Amino acid sequence: MRLRNVKNAKQIIEASKYAITNPKEHRGHYRQLFENTSPIHLEIGMGKGSFILGNALAYPNINYIGLEKFDSVLVRAINKIDQHELSNLRLMSADATYIDEIFDHEIDTVYLNFSDPWPKERHRDRRLTSKLFLEKYDHIFTSVPNIIMKTDNRHLFEYSLISLVEFGYNIEAISLDLYKEDISKNIQTEYEKRFSDKGETIYYLKVSKN
Amino acid sequence: MRLRNVKNAKQIIEASKYAITNPKEHRGHYRQLFENTSPIHLEIGMGKGSFILGNALAYPNINYIGLEKFDSVLVRAINKIDQHELSNLRLMSADATYIDEIFDHEIDTVYLNFSDPWPKERHRDRRLTSKLFLEKYDHIFTSVPNIIMKTDNRHLFEYSLISLVEFGYNIEAISLDLYKEDISKNIQTEYEKRFSDKGETIYYLKVSKN
Repeated sequence: MRLRNVKNAKQIIEASKYAITNPKEHRGHYRQLFENTSPIHLEIGMGKGSFILGNALAYPNINYIGLEKFDSVLVRAINKIDQHELSNLRLMSADATYIDEIFDHEIDTVYLNFSDPWPKERHRDRRLTSKLFLEKYDHIFTSVPNIIMKTDNRHLFEYSLISLVEFGYNIEAISLDLYKEDISKNIQTEYEKRFSDKGETIYYLKVSKN
Repeated sequence: MRLRNVKNAKQIIEASKYAITNPKEHRGHYRQLFENTSPIHLEIGMGKGSFILGNALAYPNINYIGLEKFDSVLVRAINKIDQHELSNLRLMSADATYIDEIFDHEIDTVYLNFSDPWPKERHRDRRLTSKLFLEKYDHIFTSVPNIIMKTDNRHLFEYSLISLVEFGYNIEAISLDLYKEDISKNIQTEYEKRFSDKGETIYYLKVSKN
């Protein structure tokens, strides 16, 4: 993701009704923040927010939290989402490395959309499906963890399959060419739209664990 | 696989030094048949035999057994293989449905190459990676089962991943586009050669179970 510096990013984020500016203070109490008992779905690396906004609009009975590392990107999502009135969506600026300090057994589903593939072997621990991250997710999930990923990166997808299965996840659903399936319910990310328009193969995976 | 009727197929098979004409009689004693203690690898649905012949030539310290349902196809393999002098290869005409009546905890690796995808949902039990077959394989495997599959059929591959993982297999290796990898050691089947030449995606999977 290329980053253009956005002036006053911090101020824009703090002014948004969607932004959670003190994520760690809500640890263990995110359901209270939404004032309901609906499941909470978390997108790690939400980018400009098309996917999570589309979901929040489509599924009002699910709470959505979008996590984005870069303020300059989060601001773009906020500019788009602030035009809507949604009670089931929150956004935060945070690094996934500290995710287990932000949530405590309260997330039902994690979305990993077009995550950084970190192709070099020495960076494998940085991939969001490495054992290191899967261990962190165990601390944020409720009793039945679900991970749903989409990517155009074949090697990341192959690696993720091996890693998730080794960690005890079962494959609930998989597509090795998502745009050849019936995908009327698929909600695109910005990146996905660009790449699927070019005819690139998009991989989809849903895993769960008992 | 289209079948052309081959005259005297039964006689040709029985005359071949490679053919095992009474498979069930060797049950539990296949290592004795090879007169060594090397591992035994089994190809289910060997077709015209290019893959298993290539393997037997490349790896003299592994014993290979090729199983083929149709005599008319097995004869073609025999015509090709009879020209070689190999002590580590045997062939048999058999239906995989009865595989647990043929072998008893003596197979180390099963190859499933371009197996019939049985696309209709009502035929799913006939797929060679259905739970029904995986249970049979448990009876033929030694202590560490390995299954290696190649296919150009995306839906069969997706189904197989779900089924194998659900049955407790771990993914040892996977490629979602085999011909984009370094495949200097890959041994082709006849079908694979034809389809990879056309640029079709070939999927590869190696799974194991403790």
